[in-house]
Amino acid sequence: MQTSWVPGADQSGHSVHHLPYGSFTSPRNSEPRLGVRIGDRVLDLCDNAEDLAPEGPLRAALRRPNLQGLLPLGRESWDELRTSLQRFLTDPAKAHDLVDVSQVSLHAAFEPADYVDYYASEHHATNLGRLFRPDSAPLMPNWKHLPVGYHGRAGTLVPSGVNIKRPSGQRRTPDGEIVFGPSARLDIEAEMGFVVGAPTALGDTASVDSFADHVFGLCLVNDWSARDIQAWEYQPLGPYLGKSFATSYGAWITPLAALEAAKTEAPEQDPRPLPYLTEKDRYSYDIELAVTLNGTTVSRPNYRDMYWTPAQMLAHMTVNGASLRPGDFYASGTISGPERSQVGAFIELTWGGKEPMKLDDGTERTFLKDGDIVSITATARGAAGTTLELAEVTAGVLPAD
Amino acid sequence: MQTSWVPGADQSGHSVHHLPYGSFTSPRNSEPRLGVRIGDRVLDLCDNAEDLAPEGPLRAALRRPNLQGLLPLGRESWDELRTSLQRFLTDPAKAHDLVDVSQVSLHAAFEPADYVDYYASEHHATNLGRLFRPDSAPLMPNWKHLPVGYHGRAGTLVPSGVNIKRPSGQRRTPDGEIVFGPSARLDIEAEMGFVVGAPTALGDTASVDSFADHVFGLCLVNDWSARDIQAWEYQPLGPYLGKSFATSYGAWITPLAALEAAKTEAPEQDPRPLPYLTEKDRYSYDIELAVTLNGTTVSRPNYRDMYWTPAQMLAHMTVNGASLRPGDFYASGTISGPERSQVGAFIELTWGGKEPMKLDDGTERTFLKDGDIVSITATARGAAGTTLELAEVTAGVLPAD
Repeated sequence: MQTSWVPGADQSGHSVHHLPYGSFTSPRNSEPRLGVRIGDRVLDLCDNAEDLAPEGPLRAALRRPNLQGLLPLGRESWDELRTSLQRFLTDPAKAHDLVDVSQVSLHAAFEPADYVDYYASEHHATNLGRLFRPDSAPLMPNWKHLPVGYHGRAGTLVPSGVNIKRPSGQRRTPDGEIVFGPSARLDIEAEMGFVVGAPTALGDTASVDSFADHVFGLCLVNDWSARDIQAWEYQPLGPYLGKSFATSYGAWITPLAALEAAKTEAPEQDPRPLPYLTEKDRYSYDIELAVTLNGTTVSRPNYRDMYWTPAQMLAHMTVNGASLRPGDFYASGTISGPERSQVGAFIELTWGGKEPMKLDDGTERTFLKDGDIVSITATARGAAGTTLELAEVTAGVLPAD
Repeated sequence: MQTSWVPGADQSGHSVHHLPYGSFTSPRNSEPRLGVRIGDRVLDLCDNAEDLAPEGPLRAALRRPNLQGLLPLGRESWDELRTSLQRFLTDPAKAHDLVDVSQVSLHAAFEPADYVDYYASEHHATNLGRLFRPDSAPLMPNWKHLPVGYHGRAGTLVPSGVNIKRPSGQRRTPDGEIVFGPSARLDIEAEMGFVVGAPTALGDTASVDSFADHVFGLCLVNDWSARDIQAWEYQPLGPYLGKSFATSYGAWITPLAALEAAKTEAPEQDPRPLPYLTEKDRYSYDIELAVTLNGTTVSRPNYRDMYWTPAQMLAHMTVNGASLRPGDFYASGTISGPERSQVGAFIELTWGGKEPMKLDDGTERTFLKDGDIVSITATARGAAGTTLELAEVTAGVLPAD
C-alpha cells in the first residue's frame, strides 16, 4: 500500500488508491476548480498543474473548472495523470496544507452532453413489470436480447446537495379521472452512472471491448421518479415528465482505474446475446450500496447483480452509429437484487405503496413526503486492501409550489 | 412592403420580412459566423455588428459563430435586432456586396442542449397505432390529454446537407428470430422543430402563454427512423436506437416574428385540456410542407393540422419544473394530415411497406434505398403579401458499413 502525506488518508475511503475528481469552490477560490479528494482534504489541480503534468493538453485540462478538459484526452492521459497524482500525494516533499472537504462547495463535475438511462437489472424490470402491467409477462420479449434504455433530460442532472422540488403533473385517479397536482408517488431509483470521456464520430461505434477506452469513471445516481405521472404518460413513447424534473449524481467521479480490485463476474446470460454485445472479458463491479431515508438504511443493493454490464450498455448505445461526446452520461437503471432488502426503488420496497417501510423515528413511508432526505452511499474494494467510499448522493424533497 | 437594396430579395422567399439566421463559412471567412439570409445573399452579422446593435450583449452576440449568444437575450432583444436588420437592409446607404448563398457552407445554427420529440399529429399517431399495434385502439388513453413526447439524442442533431449512414441494429424477423444488420426499413419523419432561447431555472415553469417569450424560431426537421429497430426495442421505455443515429434540421432558423401572417386557428380539442395546456390565444401556423424523394414530391403535409400546438408542447415540457436552456430544441413529431397525400412518413404513405410509392424515374419505393435523397421544403405566408421559404432539410442515405 502506498502511504500518503495527507493525515488520515490511508485509513479512509479516500486513500491514494481512490482519487475521485470533482469541481469545487472554497474560501480560497470562489470560481470552480478541478480537484481530487484525498482523505478529508481536496487537492487543487489548478494550483498544482505544473507539478502534475507536462506542458500541453493535460496540464491545460487541470486548469479547467471541471472534468471537461480531461475527458476527451482518453485513457492514456487519464492513467498518466493518476500515476502522477499518486506519486505527488505520496512524496513527502510535496506535503502542503490542503483545503478541508467540509469547507468546499461542490459543483457540476462535468458538463452533461446526452443522458441515457438503462433498465439493466432483471430483478427491477421484473418487479416493475408486475406492478405496472399486472396482466402481462413482467419482462418484455426484447429484455434479454438488448439492454433496454431511453434518453433522459441532461439539463436537469444536478450534483448531490441540490434539493429537489416535488414535481406537479397529470395523473389518472383509480376512478379514471384526469387530475393535475403535485406528484403523490414521488420515488427514488438508486443507480450507477458512467461518464463518457473519449468521443466517437457520427457513424462510428464503440465496441463492447472498448469500454475502458471511452468511459472515464462512475458515480452514484438518484433518478427521482414520479410514479403517478410516469404511469399515465409513458405509453407508447416511454418516461418523460415523470423523470425529467431532476436526476441527482454523486459529485466526485471515481475513475475506472480505482475499481480494478472491485471487478467481479457478471451474471451469466441466457440466451447468449448477439456478438456486438458479447464481451471477450465479461465483468461487473462488486459495489455495495446503501439507501438511507431520514437516517434509516432501508435497502442494500449490490451493483454486481445487474444483468447488463456497463460495457454492453456502451456498445448498444453506439451500435447504430450514434456518436459519443465528452460528458455523455449513462446510468444503469435501478439497482435491485433478488431480495426485498436489496431493491433500489421505494415502489419495489413497498410493493406499489401497499407495504410501508418503518423508519427508525417511528414513522412509516411508502413514497416520499416533503422534507424527507434521501442518501445513497456505496463502498467497493480498492487496491492494496483499501476500501473505496463512493461519493454519496444526498438531497431533500422540497414542497411543490 | 419594405424594399431591400439586395437584388431580387423582395420577390424571393427571403425578403426583409423573413430574415432567417444561420452559421456560415465562405471564401471570405473560414471560421463560422452568424449570418442572415436575404434573397440569394448572406449578411455577415459579425462584420456589421457595430451598425446593427449598440455596445453591449446584443452586439457581442452578433460576433459569436452561431445563435448561442442571441438566444438567452430574449424576445425584446430579438425584436430589436429584427427591426435593426430591416432598417439596415432597406437603407440604400448601407448597400454593399454580400456573399452569395451558393458560396457558403452551413454549420450548426445553434448548440443543441436537450432535444425532445413530440407526437402531436392525431393523424400520424392514429396511423402508427394501427400499424404497430393492430389489435388495440390506435390512440392510447393519454393521447388527447397531454402532448406525448420523449427525449431524443441532442448529440446527433445535424444540419441539412450532412448525409446519413444507414444504421445497423437488432430486429425480430416475422419468424421471431433475432437478427443483427443494417435497417431494412429506413424511414423519414417530416416535422417542425422549435429552438428555445430564453431559459428558466430548475423548478420553474414556462406557461402556455409564454411561448413567444421563450421560443426564438423554428425550422424543418427530418427525424430519420429505422422502423425495424424501433418496433423491436421500443417497449416499454420508448424509441431509442431506432431514432438516435441522426436527426436533420434546416440550417437557417426562421424567427417566430416572421410568421405572424402565417398564424391560423389550431384544431379544436375535445376533451378540453387541463388549464396549464389551455391557451388564452390558441393558434397554429399555416405552413405547407413538401416531401421530395429523388426529385419526386411524394407528400404535402400542412403544419396547421397538428392537434397539439407548440405553445402546449412548451408548457408541458416544463410543467414539472424541468428547466430550459438556450439551445433546447423540441420537434412536433411527424406532420400528417387526414389524406394519404398529406402524411409525413413513408410508413404511412406506403401503409407499412405494403403499397409502394411510384417515383418519376419509374422506380418504386417503400422504405429508403442507399443513395436516395430526401428533401423537405416548406412555404408560409409572410408580412406584406410575401411568401417565406423555410430552409430545406436535404440529405442522402449512405450505405451501412
